Amino acid sequence: MRDYQNIINGIYEKAINQSEKGTVATYIPELAKVDIANFGIHLRTINNTCFGIGEYDTLFSIQSISKVLSLAYAMSLVGEAIWKRVDVEPSGHPFNQLALLEVENGIPRNPFINSGAIVIADILLSHLDDPKTDFLNFVRQLCDDDSINYNETVALSEKQTGFKNVSAANLLKSFKNLENDIDAVLDFYFHQCSIEMTCSQLTKVFYFLANNGCCLQNKLHLTNSQVKRINALMLTCGFYDEAGEFAFEVGLPGKSGVGGGIVALLPDNFIITTWSPGLNKKGNSLLGMQALEAFTTQTKQSIF
Amino acid sequence: MRDYQNIINGIYEKAINQSEKGTVATYIPELAKVDIANFGIHLRTINNTCFGIGEYDTLFSIQSISKVLSLAYAMSLVGEAIWKRVDVEPSGHPFNQLALLEVENGIPRNPFINSGAIVIADILLSHLDDPKTDFLNFVRQLCDDDSINYNETVALSEKQTGFKNVSAANLLKSFKNLENDIDAVLDFYFHQCSIEMTCSQLTKVFYFLANNGCCLQNKLHLTNSQVKRINALMLTCGFYDEAGEFAFEVGLPGKSGVGGGIVALLPDNFIITTWSPGLNKKGNSLLGMQALEAFTTQTKQSIF
Amino acid sequence: MRDYQNIINGIYEKAINQSEKGTVATYIPELAKVDIANFGIHLRTINNTCFGIGEYDTLFSIQSISKVLSLAYAMSLVGEAIWKRVDVEPSGHPFNQLALLEVENGIPRNPFINSGAIVIADILLSHLDDPKTDFLNFVRQLCDDDSINYNETVALSEKQTGFKNVSAANLLKSFKNLENDIDAVLDFYFHQCSIEMTCSQLTKVFYFLANNGCCLQNKLHLTNSQVKRINALMLTCGFYDEAGEFAFEVGLPGKSGVGGGIVALLPDNFIITTWSPGLNKKGNSLLGMQALEAFTTQTKQSIF
Amino acid sequence: MRDYQNIINGIYEKAINQSEKGTVATYIPELAKVDIANFGIHLRTINNTCFGIGEYDTLFSIQSISKVLSLAYAMSLVGEAIWKRVDVEPSGHPFNQLALLEVENGIPRNPFINSGAIVIADILLSHLDDPKTDFLNFVRQLCDDDSINYNETVALSEKQTGFKNVSAANLLKSFKNLENDIDAVLDFYFHQCSIEMTCSQLTKVFYFLANNGCCLQNKLHLTNSQVKRINALMLTCGFYDEAGEFAFEVGLPGKSGVGGGIVALLPDNFIITTWSPGLNKKGNSLLGMQALEAFTTQTKQSIF
Repeated sequence: MRDYQNIINGIYEKAINQSEKGTVATYIPELAKVDIANFGIHLRTINNTCFGIGEYDTLFSIQSISKVLSLAYAMSLVGEAIWKRVDVEPSGHPFNQLALLEVENGIPRNPFINSGAIVIADILLSHLDDPKTDFLNFVRQLCDDDSINYNETVALSEKQTGFKNVSAANLLKSFKNLENDIDAVLDFYFHQCSIEMTCSQLTKVFYFLANNGCCLQNKLHLTNSQVKRINALMLTCGFYDEAGEFAFEVGLPGKSGVGGGIVALLPDNFIITTWSPGLNKKGNSLLGMQALEAFTTQTKQSIF
Repeated sequence: MRDYQNIINGIYEKAINQSEKGTVATYIPELAKVDIANFGIHLRTINNTCFGIGEYDTLFSIQSISKVLSLAYAMSLVGEAIWKRVDVEPSGHPFNQLALLEVENGIPRNPFINSGAIVIADILLSHLDDPKTDFLNFVRQLCDDDSINYNETVALSEKQTGFKNVSAANLLKSFKNLENDIDAVLDFYFHQCSIEMTCSQLTKVFYFLANNGCCLQNKLHLTNSQVKRINALMLTCGFYDEAGEFAFEVGLPGKSGVGGGIVALLPDNFIITTWSPGLNKKGNSLLGMQALEAFTTQTKQSIF
Repeated sequence: MRDYQNIINGIYEKAINQSEKGTVATYIPELAKVDIANFGIHLRTINNTCFGIGEYDTLFSIQSISKVLSLAYAMSLVGEAIWKRVDVEPSGHPFNQLALLEVENGIPRNPFINSGAIVIADILLSHLDDPKTDFLNFVRQLCDDDSINYNETVALSEKQTGFKNVSAANLLKSFKNLENDIDAVLDFYFHQCSIEMTCSQLTKVFYFLANNGCCLQNKLHLTNSQVKRINALMLTCGFYDEAGEFAFEVGLPGKSGVGGGIVALLPDNFIITTWSPGLNKKGNSLLGMQALEAFTTQTKQSIF
Repeated sequence: MRDYQNIINGIYEKAINQSEKGTVATYIPELAKVDIANFGIHLRTINNTCFGIGEYDTLFSIQSISKVLSLAYAMSLVGEAIWKRVDVEPSGHPFNQLALLEVENGIPRNPFINSGAIVIADILLSHLDDPKTDFLNFVRQLCDDDSINYNETVALSEKQTGFKNVSAANLLKSFKNLENDIDAVLDFYFHQCSIEMTCSQLTKVFYFLANNGCCLQNKLHLTNSQVKRINALMLTCGFYDEAGEFAFEVGLPGKSGVGGGIVALLPDNFIITTWSPGLNKKGNSLLGMQALEAFTTQTKQSIF
């Protein structure tokens, strides 16, 4: 066993003493209230041994990290048919640009930009009886934890201010790439993003992606091939227009959220989650990016 | 007096016998029902002498031609402050592109692309007690004709299918360039576009733009300087990404609508309206464009 | 006769006392040496009555103003076939952008952006025995003045630093929209731009565009229709991405050059040239734009 | 030992009997002469055990595959300073687009698009006494094979037709992101791309990237960290705008060339090269892409 605890302790100490911590997201008013001083790291090995430091047991808004879970759920329900409605290429542009969507006739570049995740939400709506309940149960099952929940205040806050997402949904609809009512799709999407989890819950939920599709409760959720594809997508598209930088500096499949969380994993080895609400200019957690870079540099463990 | 009647008769004869008539717009279902065989021309001189041929007394949906009227009304109410919220440059792109709007931080390129006209609609909403009634009265007054009205069926039809306009309005709102409620702005905008007029009514309504701001009822609506600016905008931005072509081939300020109407004018001389519902690939009336090119070629009258 | 002399005197006085004069272009090192204090205005009526103030008899580099002359020459030689190789739409983008050219398969938006003017230069090369001599003779003939000449130092200066133009020419060649050797085309193009004239020479050279194609020596160079088209192009495309602004504020067909010159004209009425080497952010002469706006406001003379 | 020989035999049989083989690149005339029927696969394990089928010992033009070698050489000479002049993000656009380069002020998106590779070539020129000889020696040393050489005919062919590359180089120069003479940089770049190798030579040359920087002759060329970064770049940027697709379907770092070659590798495990000159619409070898997808599907070996 590598000395993971020492390594994350060292990274944590350095980070909390650093003055430059980025900026808390303000475009969702509820998120702006979070204390920027929070910082937590949690690592779970494939043998379910855990290491943590800082606020790794504090709930935060997972936001875009949820896009990996909705994609996994949609793949388990629909399979390869998803890829007729969303592509698998990096966007090369900030997460909220509509330009490419317009040029490319309403087919989002990948399922992790907002428009792509809205299409995935639409797919789930078409295949689920009670989408919000069913999706929450999917996540709770992955985590074996029924306490996981939506934050209705955050969902409402985003609903009232998420004009760019409404814009994207209407553009998708104009290209006939949304089947359901726009309001229903966005209501589901805003709820999905509002889920709250801790770092340690997230390393449990993402365990199946490091373990060939099988979760800690030993249930197979996706095929080996499907898991590899999700991991590939996280690597090439998981960090908006900083995806190349993350692959280059960290070298792990991962996904960030505007709430300040980042989940990354090394297949067959470990899952690691960081949470620090201060974001860099590209919208990814500043301390989280630095921590993960330091982690793979010190452990020399990456997919490359 | 030039022999206008002979000239438009000749143009009309050639046009109605032409097999290639373009395609009726289908994106607003109500408009798709119009008979493509319709063709009318109406010319009104500055002395109010009129010449007409074909369906120049049939009502049609003026659609984007209304953008000139809402702009004129907004200028009369607000003056130069408009230009803080919308620019005066040609877009160089199709009428529905959101890309530029996103890059340019929510300031539409000009008031004749959809996003620009939606901003103008928002300005009117902020300054009018009863926007739909007040705007209709403004148009009726210009025409001295109380029969002019909205077509509620067309307005509803566009409301139910105008996803790209909803997308644009939300994008504007995300950049804080809409003051009013999105639904209220779009309801007004869809009504404004649904106004029905005949070719001969349109040459009357646009008379003030050929007459230094003074309408046929001898009321001054805009200053001479404001009229010149609207005419300049029509010339550079009145025909989506075919504006240069229209200036080059026709050489008059003008504005087209997806209902197949075109209004053009030579200041201090005449106003001419054509209506043929078949559109070319750029969304402008195919026969109308040809008719106006032939007209200025034969009369040798243009602003250049 | 309007009191043109009083008007331009007033404009001149105000301008030379203004502290904000813009910035002299530095990308062509030779041009950076020009004294920013220079300011001249010259107006020539259709009756060849002249009015001038300031440095209207000082030579300056006409730069992009030459694009109007090369276009006119090409039209006189080739006619409408030009328009298979260059379009007539405003670009909506800064003068040196290659992006549109790439997207639009090597067909420049219009003959006044650099790539379009390079295509026109290529057309001249294909049709002239001795391009540089022949073009110079065309310009001298329009002006009835054999003293007009290229500035070899400026041409060489641009050759050594005009990497963006070399880039554009190679992109055109890759789309097979250049027939001649790239170096030969650019050598001609850089010479064409290096021509030096005074304000009063320029009002003489451009006289034929205000006089239906007939120059002051009473020779017909272009048809009435061709002249109208060039004037239309100047209005929609003559000022890079400030063309709409110029149409809106000034309301005359015109063309600017990075040397600080602007020529504008009112068909059948007058030609006016201003020269002030300080440029605004869009690359047009700052004092010149202001002077022409003041001129059409005070005279109430514009095409609109 | 997995049964690699059986697996590649099966893939080979299926591929050569497939009628759809893509299209041989024609933009470099010399390449258009290659017989589309060629197909070879070669695999070399980290223990230097080799498996091959088909034309794996035939020389072909490695073209863009050379960009990985020039990058590696530049990193060994200059280290991290490279990244001031070229970024590490996927471009999301075809390999020859200049648009992004213009918007992003002359900093290429990554070292594997043409403009990025031209910057790397410029860096090599600034640091080498005899660039063409030195680079060839670097490649020969990696392969322990002095027979490797430039193909002067191909280099000349590209020089005479590579207008887009000349365009890109001039654009870079205009942004001051080329230090050396443009012709010299391009001469080196066209030579670099013209190197000819066989599949089996390529698996030897790329061995160091699967072996932590150490080549088969046991010489350390790059640090472990540098190798990981090159592998990350190949994964996110190695296949033009099909990089996401390759990561998604194949799941290995790799690089393709317009000559029809593809090299891919699994760190600490193997290097595999395919060659089939027929390209798909995105410019990557059609049979090669299929073969590598089949290979990782059947072996279940990928970085994810």
